[in-house]
Amino acid sequence: MKVAILGGTGDIGEGLALRLSQRHDVIVGSREAAKAEEAAASFNRRLEGKGLKGGIRGATNLEAARAGEVVILAVRFQVVQQTLDSIAGAMDGSKIVVSPIVPMAKPKLCAYEPPAEGSAAKCIGALMRPEMRIVAAFQTLPAPRLADLDDPLGFDVVVCSDDEAAKKAVMGLVADLYGNVRPLDGGGLEEARLVESLTPLLINLAIKNKTKPLSIKFV
Amino acid sequence: MKVAILGGTGDIGEGLALRLSQRHDVIVGSREAAKAEEAAASFNRRLEGKGLKGGIRGATNLEAARAGEVVILAVRFQVVQQTLDSIAGAMDGSKIVVSPIVPMAKPKLCAYEPPAEGSAAKCIGALMRPEMRIVAAFQTLPAPRLADLDDPLGFDVVVCSDDEAAKKAVMGLVADLYGNVRPLDGGGLEEARLVESLTPLLINLAIKNKTKPLSIKFV
Repeated sequence: MKVAILGGTGDIGEGLALRLSQRHDVIVGSREAAKAEEAAASFNRRLEGKGLKGGIRGATNLEAARAGEVVILAVRFQVVQQTLDSIAGAMDGSKIVVSPIVPMAKPKLCAYEPPAEGSAAKCIGALMRPEMRIVAAFQTLPAPRLADLDDPLGFDVVVCSDDEAAKKAVMGLVADLYGNVRPLDGGGLEEARLVESLTPLLINLAIKNKTKPLSIKFV
Repeated sequence: MKVAILGGTGDIGEGLALRLSQRHDVIVGSREAAKAEEAAASFNRRLEGKGLKGGIRGATNLEAARAGEVVILAVRFQVVQQTLDSIAGAMDGSKIVVSPIVPMAKPKLCAYEPPAEGSAAKCIGALMRPEMRIVAAFQTLPAPRLADLDDPLGFDVVVCSDDEAAKKAVMGLVADLYGNVRPLDGGGLEEARLVESLTPLLINLAIKNKTKPLSIKFV
């Protein structure tokens, strides 16, 4: 599939770009085309250095969204609205919109701070037109380990959506990540809050138990 | 340690009793002494049938709470207040009170429905006297697998408390469960909501993906 990763130059976007690129056409988006192109070139060099295929492209978020069949919002919750505004002209009901976003606060340890809609995913659903196909996924993938191609991962990723076909497509993307990642069906968008709240827990556990960044496996 | 498991005749109490009994003195509590004694006798027969040691005792919740150094509230959220009322005479600040409780609603899939205090654990803290040592733990253990002594488990259990010594003691109990269970420090009682909300997620994942009851491993 053609996968656009908005805000794909850093954090979780980086690892998703690297690991989806082996089986899908990845376009990394950024507010500035030059920054996206630079990141894409750097990602391709890292892939080729591992004997893997490159081919990631860079573009503005708008161009990336236009090209993508799946559009992953790898941006902070605080800039969701402006990101959606900037790509509005590219979006129609055929595209699948994926939210890996987790609204968090960190006084000492992390807390989950969902918006009034109940979750970032539901909030994004409310911000977009009703025909848009929203999927919540990838929230629990630790960015540094995702971006480290030597890490075999071994995680589960929970996928939530009210659109069963879109959910199935994104579960396919999860299974296609380079490394060992298992997709699980987490139910509808209503259930996404249960997954979003995992992320602060994972961060707290790593802090309190002095471990590497953690993800999750359901056993 | 002397561990009282209130509401210990069924659900998660059963498995905790069976699996803590190999290294600790377990007293199963119930509203009626006869019911608790009957359950204890049945648990001991099952343990002895596996070549494991019995020795679990049964008592009223009040007697069990009086005897326990650690008091595990293996009851539904709806009866917490009445359970705490029934044991009030037995409780002082030396005892560790453990909440494995998760307030849940289930319209179709499960939702996490925390009380106004933010979590069952915080609510229990508010219901008890300030010197009581509250620990949140065991919420993510699936009752049927815990009660099946042939299941090797292989789970993590997150333990949250504002009392570091009590947290450490309960982390020791987790490590002492028969089977393979790793305790992890989840922070303070404020963080317990992130763990409680895992339970409806685990139930939903088992329903949607048609798996056995699931627990969690942080990897």
